[in-house]
Amino acid sequence: MTTLQPVRGTRDFYPEEMRVRNWLFDIWRQTSLRFGFEEYDACVLESEDLYIRKAGDEITEQLYSFEDKGGRRIALRPEMTPSLARLILQRKNTLSFPLKWFTIPQCFRYERMTRGRKREHYQWNLDVVGQPDLTAEVEVISALLTSLEKTGLDASHVELRVNDRQILNGLLSNIGIPEDRHTEAMVVIDKREKLSPEVLDQLLRDVGLDNDQLDKLNAFFSAAEESFAEVGRHLGSHGAATEGLLRLLELLQGVGLRDYITIDCTVVRGLSYYTGTVFELRDRAGKFRSICGGGRYDSLLSAFGGESIPAIGFGFGDVVIQELLAELKLLPELTHDIDFAVLPFSEQQAPVALEVAQRLRGAGFRAGSDFSYRKLGRALQRASEIGARKAVLLLPEELERGELVVRDMAARTEVRVDKEAFLNDPE
Amino acid sequence: MTTLQPVRGTRDFYPEEMRVRNWLFDIWRQTSLRFGFEEYDACVLESEDLYIRKAGDEITEQLYSFEDKGGRRIALRPEMTPSLARLILQRKNTLSFPLKWFTIPQCFRYERMTRGRKREHYQWNLDVVGQPDLTAEVEVISALLTSLEKTGLDASHVELRVNDRQILNGLLSNIGIPEDRHTEAMVVIDKREKLSPEVLDQLLRDVGLDNDQLDKLNAFFSAAEESFAEVGRHLGSHGAATEGLLRLLELLQGVGLRDYITIDCTVVRGLSYYTGTVFELRDRAGKFRSICGGGRYDSLLSAFGGESIPAIGFGFGDVVIQELLAELKLLPELTHDIDFAVLPFSEQQAPVALEVAQRLRGAGFRAGSDFSYRKLGRALQRASEIGARKAVLLLPEELERGELVVRDMAARTEVRVDKEAFLNDPE
Repeated sequence: MTTLQPVRGTRDFYPEEMRVRNWLFDIWRQTSLRFGFEEYDACVLESEDLYIRKAGDEITEQLYSFEDKGGRRIALRPEMTPSLARLILQRKNTLSFPLKWFTIPQCFRYERMTRGRKREHYQWNLDVVGQPDLTAEVEVISALLTSLEKTGLDASHVELRVNDRQILNGLLSNIGIPEDRHTEAMVVIDKREKLSPEVLDQLLRDVGLDNDQLDKLNAFFSAAEESFAEVGRHLGSHGAATEGLLRLLELLQGVGLRDYITIDCTVVRGLSYYTGTVFELRDRAGKFRSICGGGRYDSLLSAFGGESIPAIGFGFGDVVIQELLAELKLLPELTHDIDFAVLPFSEQQAPVALEVAQRLRGAGFRAGSDFSYRKLGRALQRASEIGARKAVLLLPEELERGELVVRDMAARTEVRVDKEAFLNDPE
Repeated sequence: MTTLQPVRGTRDFYPEEMRVRNWLFDIWRQTSLRFGFEEYDACVLESEDLYIRKAGDEITEQLYSFEDKGGRRIALRPEMTPSLARLILQRKNTLSFPLKWFTIPQCFRYERMTRGRKREHYQWNLDVVGQPDLTAEVEVISALLTSLEKTGLDASHVELRVNDRQILNGLLSNIGIPEDRHTEAMVVIDKREKLSPEVLDQLLRDVGLDNDQLDKLNAFFSAAEESFAEVGRHLGSHGAATEGLLRLLELLQGVGLRDYITIDCTVVRGLSYYTGTVFELRDRAGKFRSICGGGRYDSLLSAFGGESIPAIGFGFGDVVIQELLAELKLLPELTHDIDFAVLPFSEQQAPVALEVAQRLRGAGFRAGSDFSYRKLGRALQRASEIGARKAVLLLPEELERGELVVRDMAARTEVRVDKEAFLNDPE
């Protein structure tokens, strides 16, 4: 006998789970369209070499990859941005910039199964490509925060922690770390909340920091946690990097989203290709992992052999947000719903039931039928189960007279109607 | 440098292709909902053993399978029905039958790349499970044909060829083929249009037919092509199998879909699990492969170790239908569209532009901005490219007076409006 379980780490979506998924995806899609973004997609399969990058991102270490029957190294995409870069470079001479694109791809990773983490999730991606200034940051962050409001979340539930990697670049330069080690150092710093201080210090020593540099780095983080004003003092001649962040805060204030924002100089995000602004969405209660993360990646396209094109975007997974909404009791109770359940009571009525349902659909209504010919009480119960607003009863005597009985399921009222008149103009 | 091509046999969807895909999927989704079906989904990954069946279906021979890092045999699903069976069996005690479910999964196969065929496609699946009589056939076929009408196709463009495998079972029994060879014989008969008569005869000999039986089979097909009345004569005592098909025809007549239907006793469809009604959608001009195929599979769930549950459904791929619609010039010309393009003309106006766009979105409109600060003519050209109905011009003098200029892009007319009044009630 075949196993009935889904593949380890993957999810099935029965209609009740699918309704919630569609509710969330619709919010993402409608928000994207409202902000003027266009949808795109690529196949879940990509060449493995699309993800081979210098610095050891967690995401590429956990690649769900395999060899296909033709001997090619294939990966199930771990994230969408490299595919986006591929699509843009393929048509860079014909596309009209700036691009404002979004997509909701399924992404995979292969890691040991701990803490109930899955091997796949869906991830809303929204990117602005070819718009170099902070307006791109504002549009991307506004879309993200506006989508949250549609789910019932506000600044009392979540905060967006924002940073600029150039601030860390400035600090690392200031304490004498050569530029070509900055990305590696950041990938380690990103694990700051997950690892013990001892392990973290050791990993930073592996990147080349000595004890003095480690002390300065840790002093910076302590100071930064106290106040953003302290940050400039640690940066010395590299202090200019803080200005952009303050300007971004001002612009977000202008669109009414300042309440969500916390400046947090320890945020670097795990992906090695970020070059400037980085941000992550966290629940204020601190119960969950990062809900969404993103940033500016002005060099990614050049890493694939193209010119450098300024770009910024985020990836917003479907798992943590649902955990948070469930915790806050903000997940909607969604039931299947149709306009009419057509209920025949004998096999002889099947052709009429099929005709009635088909004509209701032709008039633009959602109609289902029940051909199990149950008695009235159980048939109405089934109609209620499938979420019918009204039931159309094919009672033998009435039908003989060319009549139907239409029952309002909530009001529990019934009216007798002429079949033809009703079908020509239902409701 | 990384390759910029998608993985061999897979497709990228740039916004222009995505718009067509969304147009088609929306028709499928809306039709399904109108017929009272509920959406479900499962992961594209399944255990390979879900597809190991006795008879050599083409679809399992071309399985896109691999070994994962944990040594498991995994397949990218070639079709959805086995996943549907798995989902149903997993919860067979709590689900309320009949189920009317649909989904639009991506499916994969791994075959040599010939005739431009792809290794992936999307496939609308719609199934009724637990409804044993012909009303299920009528509902599934009606949904299929109704969806076509939304694309602009009608019975002059396409036909649905319908058969009942029990007719072929009857014939095979009649000419002395033991029942346990029927499925294998059918899988060969399915290739009737693709192979030469000689190759076909040889494959049937391999299944165990002798020359006399081959002659009788071929005589049956010739007679069946002439007229359905001839079919009964060949079936002898097994003739009862034709009655259901005639009854189905009558029911489809009752819902106004008879014009689409052709009875064709050579149709068997490639999947070994079909047990009764089978059908396929073809273009009348005969230029394309089968557009959609389906049938009744009353034994599939028992093959996975469950009880037998009557079921019927179809799989409708997204590739051939688009080829046919393109050929008939029925594919819509879809452009990106937004309500408002907000056009600032200097960097100093960026905060105002962001605020205007955000408030338009808050009022329920689709709004985009262009922060490249082009001159008026080029800015309007860009607004037109992104499909804006109206442009909101931030002209310096007007803005100073608290006014905006709103341009109707099609009518080429402009009105000067009070900024606050307009944003409180756009349009």
